[in-house]
Amino acid sequence: MNKVIFDTDPGIDDAMALLFLARHPQIDLIGVTTVFGNAPIELTTRNALYLTEAWDIAAPVAKGAGETFDPARGGSYWPTAIHGHNGIGDVAVLEAVSRQADPRPAYQFIIDTVRAHPKEVTLIAVGRMTNLALALEADPDITQLVKQVIIMGGAFDVNGNVSPAAEANIHGDPEAADVVMTANWPVVVIGLDVTMKTVMTSGYLAKMVESGRSDVKLLSDISQLYIEFYKGRVGDGMVVHDSCAAVYLVRPDLFETRTGAIRVVCGGIADGQTIQKPDGRGFPPSAWDNLPSQTVATGIKPDSVLEVIRAALVEGIAG
Amino acid sequence: MNKVIFDTDPGIDDAMALLFLARHPQIDLIGVTTVFGNAPIELTTRNALYLTEAWDIAAPVAKGAGETFDPARGGSYWPTAIHGHNGIGDVAVLEAVSRQADPRPAYQFIIDTVRAHPKEVTLIAVGRMTNLALALEADPDITQLVKQVIIMGGAFDVNGNVSPAAEANIHGDPEAADVVMTANWPVVVIGLDVTMKTVMTSGYLAKMVESGRSDVKLLSDISQLYIEFYKGRVGDGMVVHDSCAAVYLVRPDLFETRTGAIRVVCGGIADGQTIQKPDGRGFPPSAWDNLPSQTVATGIKPDSVLEVIRAALVEGIAG
Repeated sequence: MNKVIFDTDPGIDDAMALLFLARHPQIDLIGVTTVFGNAPIELTTRNALYLTEAWDIAAPVAKGAGETFDPARGGSYWPTAIHGHNGIGDVAVLEAVSRQADPRPAYQFIIDTVRAHPKEVTLIAVGRMTNLALALEADPDITQLVKQVIIMGGAFDVNGNVSPAAEANIHGDPEAADVVMTANWPVVVIGLDVTMKTVMTSGYLAKMVESGRSDVKLLSDISQLYIEFYKGRVGDGMVVHDSCAAVYLVRPDLFETRTGAIRVVCGGIADGQTIQKPDGRGFPPSAWDNLPSQTVATGIKPDSVLEVIRAALVEGIAG
Repeated sequence: MNKVIFDTDPGIDDAMALLFLARHPQIDLIGVTTVFGNAPIELTTRNALYLTEAWDIAAPVAKGAGETFDPARGGSYWPTAIHGHNGIGDVAVLEAVSRQADPRPAYQFIIDTVRAHPKEVTLIAVGRMTNLALALEADPDITQLVKQVIIMGGAFDVNGNVSPAAEANIHGDPEAADVVMTANWPVVVIGLDVTMKTVMTSGYLAKMVESGRSDVKLLSDISQLYIEFYKGRVGDGMVVHDSCAAVYLVRPDLFETRTGAIRVVCGGIADGQTIQKPDGRGFPPSAWDNLPSQTVATGIKPDSVLEVIRAALVEGIAG
């Protein structure tokens, strides 16, 4: 079983990834940590509690960072046109969720859980990298205790989405992402290079709903605003960014990858851009020298990834 | 006829492009301006005088900038491993070249020549963009008088060559490149995305030498060091970076292109990186807004480009 802590800012495609991680038979979701991003931290935490309650997901939820790793950066922007004013498509959510968050802050929950299961836990982080950077700052030795880190974020050989240079998760906290990607633990980055190719059509989602599962019905309900936003961009469907990172855990064979040190641009017009120095390429001395080689996804089999998601959500099986 | 001013830092692949521009029957090379880059300005100017004399090229040579557009930037690096200590492959050059440079600085020569032939002159710039930026600063109205600007430089959907982010010509003077690419004149950027695919093998070059032309023999002689440098990178041959820009002038049909505003990163780890905002893509407000749409080469037919070069150099015909 793959033990997973899911670091997330639900967020609509986050919700799909959460359900996938909970339902996939080879994944043991042992924690959910929240971070600001698609909405303020109070909302993403409330949404995580709501979704885990509605979907009967036992994993504890720990509330994480509400501002950037470097507080001086400031200035958050909430993508209400994509994720709604409440972060999950403006679908009505019970204000009073009965579940309570774990008392620890997310970074401490990550540290404790990783130390309780040395070399067994994969961190799947699909929001700002703030919680992971805070965990590294508080306990640098966890780099040797985490099994791997899988990130949804960045844009390497393609444009970003919040600027021509940068993708939203990384742009939202570049300093944190640079800390996480240059740390000496194995990082796999699933960025826009592959996620933008992975579009679940509304028809495909509707067919999943026909299975009669109430959890899939709720997922579909909260996804409609997101589908509407992407209509002018990718046609009729939803880009399943975060689920791509979750699928990588169990089906890395569906991805092409490239290895090399990664840096994140902090400041200037390219703020939040991810740049990899591919292994084996020679350059004069640079800011990428003597850093661990990480893995970047450069290719994907979108249809197979969608089928893996469907199989887990509808049939509860490993696709 | 296509009137051309060639702004160059010879430089070995510069030399091939110079010969191409001089020999192509549809091109009227009316000026050569020099800039620092592959070697210091005294050497690149001496080399331009030497090559135009050796090859009987009538176009005047005007000496250009020896330092960056923003002098505070400083710190030049001479790529002696690629272009040799003298800038043209360490082949012996007569110290006393009898030709003299035009008395005007390059930027003034550009202004005067463009004003003498309004809307007729193409600037082909294959070194640092310093002279063009100085010309724009001294006479902003030339943007309306230049026919087009074709640049060899930058790296858009691929890594750079002097850093993972940046290509040498742009990295050598990012502020100048940003001025040139954001000015309101039509710019076509031929970057590493296409030039790295355009490799003339040493066998191909040797076969050109067999034609018996002394100018091609000299070109081959000065190219050997450059071929040696690229052996570990692209196999046996020379990347004809600068000639790709020259070929674009007469055979744009051999390129695929993408339009959109371009900015150059100035400072930080991505210093000198070129980033395009493709037309039609929506982003929140960014540093790319309200700038002219420029053209970037994203694809090339390398074999056809090489044949166009060969035809001009060996047969003096339009390939």
